[in-house]
Amino acid sequence: MLVNVERAQRLMEEEGLDGLVATTAPNVYYLSGLWSRSLFMWPGEAQVYAVAAGDRLSQRAVVASTGDMDTALECFPGVEIINYGPFNRYVAEGVQLTPEETRLKELAIDRHPRGDALEGLVAALEETGLTAGVIGLDERGINASYPGELTNRLPKLEIRPASSLLTRIRMVKTPEEIKRLREAVRVTEKAILRAVGIAREGVTEGDLAREFDRALIDQGAEPLFTGLRVGRQSAFGQVRAGETPLRRGDRIWFDVGCRYQGYSSDIARTFAFGDIGERARRFYDAIFEGEEAGLAAIKAGVRADEVFRVTVDAVRKAGIPNFRRRMVGHGMGIWLYDPPMLAPGDETILEEGMVLDIEPPYYELGTGALAVEDTLVVTSGRPELLTSISRKLEDVG
Amino acid sequence: MLVNVERAQRLMEEEGLDGLVATTAPNVYYLSGLWSRSLFMWPGEAQVYAVAAGDRLSQRAVVASTGDMDTALECFPGVEIINYGPFNRYVAEGVQLTPEETRLKELAIDRHPRGDALEGLVAALEETGLTAGVIGLDERGINASYPGELTNRLPKLEIRPASSLLTRIRMVKTPEEIKRLREAVRVTEKAILRAVGIAREGVTEGDLAREFDRALIDQGAEPLFTGLRVGRQSAFGQVRAGETPLRRGDRIWFDVGCRYQGYSSDIARTFAFGDIGERARRFYDAIFEGEEAGLAAIKAGVRADEVFRVTVDAVRKAGIPNFRRRMVGHGMGIWLYDPPMLAPGDETILEEGMVLDIEPPYYELGTGALAVEDTLVVTSGRPELLTSISRKLEDVG
Repeated sequence: MLVNVERAQRLMEEEGLDGLVATTAPNVYYLSGLWSRSLFMWPGEAQVYAVAAGDRLSQRAVVASTGDMDTALECFPGVEIINYGPFNRYVAEGVQLTPEETRLKELAIDRHPRGDALEGLVAALEETGLTAGVIGLDERGINASYPGELTNRLPKLEIRPASSLLTRIRMVKTPEEIKRLREAVRVTEKAILRAVGIAREGVTEGDLAREFDRALIDQGAEPLFTGLRVGRQSAFGQVRAGETPLRRGDRIWFDVGCRYQGYSSDIARTFAFGDIGERARRFYDAIFEGEEAGLAAIKAGVRADEVFRVTVDAVRKAGIPNFRRRMVGHGMGIWLYDPPMLAPGDETILEEGMVLDIEPPYYELGTGALAVEDTLVVTSGRPELLTSISRKLEDVG
Repeated sequence: MLVNVERAQRLMEEEGLDGLVATTAPNVYYLSGLWSRSLFMWPGEAQVYAVAAGDRLSQRAVVASTGDMDTALECFPGVEIINYGPFNRYVAEGVQLTPEETRLKELAIDRHPRGDALEGLVAALEETGLTAGVIGLDERGINASYPGELTNRLPKLEIRPASSLLTRIRMVKTPEEIKRLREAVRVTEKAILRAVGIAREGVTEGDLAREFDRALIDQGAEPLFTGLRVGRQSAFGQVRAGETPLRRGDRIWFDVGCRYQGYSSDIARTFAFGDIGERARRFYDAIFEGEEAGLAAIKAGVRADEVFRVTVDAVRKAGIPNFRRRMVGHGMGIWLYDPPMLAPGDETILEEGMVLDIEPPYYELGTGALAVEDTLVVTSGRPELLTSISRKLEDVG
């Protein structure tokens, strides 16, 4: 189980909740271990739920379509699995089934499925003892008509929105989550190094981006976003890498992420390919100083918006006087943009075990991007970096 | 432009609509050429719109955050671009900007951005002459409070839900769309052949899946889903490939898709690795006969559910008497599950230029999956297959 149970139960008590219903891919995964492909294939249509209740959230159930029962086998032990709707699977005659096949047969063939997702959810609430009381419902992923229908079917149940609460629970990570985040960072760093490893004059940014993606795939990770551009093209960071050839004096900019063992990564690095000039080096140094100052400020008890202020101030003092940003970092976890935001107005008090990204990038038309972004664990002292490759502007030319 | 304008205007007239507002990634791309990464990074939060109105839908606008203005440069010519919210980019002094940099400067720095997405949408409706009359709003992607607020700001505007209309417009493809779908199929087929090209005893299903993904990346395509399993593991088709080694007598099952130039692919193939036995061959032949019968039935004027009936009947007659399915195919386009469905109850009359997948797979615990799935263009006669690799059960052992 990934959940920080003490934290979850404390926050649920504060909100007066007896149980939680997750409806979006990261929240369902967090509570049940099921990563729903259907939620991505049929956005806005597929319905998948995870329910958690009881002492130490030990009453757990997942609701998914009969077609999705193969992925339901990946649920954490102890999670009750409820299926709905038709899907046709058969059983070979005269073949000894494996334990996995037997389990899928029990789940998806032998049982009568619930009629639809709503019936499945009602069954899950019954199984977990949530037919009365107050539940927190992850309102973002539920079919719009279901909350009302749920209230009709279970009139003693009060429903409150809980999407925001669920992300707040997820903010503080367990050791298992930190281990997975560390590994997601590690495979991403290896892929960055493999990509810069092929840098030479004439290699295109597309060549570098493809090498990066291949390096992720070779390690069993899934590319999430590959911001990899050369020279001033990096001002267009969300545009796919093109076939601009690398020339001496270019920078190679990475802002990249993957998904690995259920967890996400998001790292930025800037490499020099030969002499990139005094000004670019000076500006890189300024954002690096900003990141350093932000890292020095991050510890348990500090407010997220205070880290923002310190970081931006440091970049300004270190050489980019007009530096402005909306945010200089964000929470990391199953999803790559989770709260808190290191941004003005985010009053979250940092706590030990939060995993954050810090990033003060500078984007300039005619120059491109200068960026560094690292993932860290908040502690009572200096944060623990999950990144381990050099944060300096290394010359790979 | 990708839109089938005649069809769009005819269907809009039937519904009494003066304009369309797209809010989900495929619909926004269809009307504007903007593929929003933000909608995937911040599902349920990011707001991106495309508006189309006027004679031949020539009044078009896109609304996206200032941060997204780099991707807005990829919009089709003639699309008005409206940005909202803050994002900090700078301009290098003393550097001659490229035309692309100049354009981004105009869009994202020189102009005052609209305050939020709703203000941006109001501006887009004004730009496209839609401050009064009836608009069809893609209701699935809009912030829940916006339709009401829009009515307050533009009281002469009537708003009707149009998510379903937009997918119905997209059902019939233009020649440009068919060209792109053909290319998405082609790169997927090449990747399938590259993966089976490394098949030998001891190679694992993970090795094959990684080779498939690498082959897509090498061609500039993005893996969407890689269902690739060996032997009876293929009964767990949505579970990620593991490290089961390939053994003589196994089948290699693919149900795979990618995204390429904005369009999706979805193809299934079954390969034999040596002698897979008489029963598996016989069952494959049965689903192949079903697909053949379905292909023979598909032409303009036929109903989608009739193709379903013919296909299922043919599989039953050809050797799987108890064969049942919920659907045997679906529309293909920007998204990989679009209407119509070749399924009971789908009364859509097939039209020339629709692009469909047909698939009558058979899943059996203890055996695995036997599958074939092809992409085709509906014509007045026999459909034109976009797939070109063998549909037979080829032996690669």
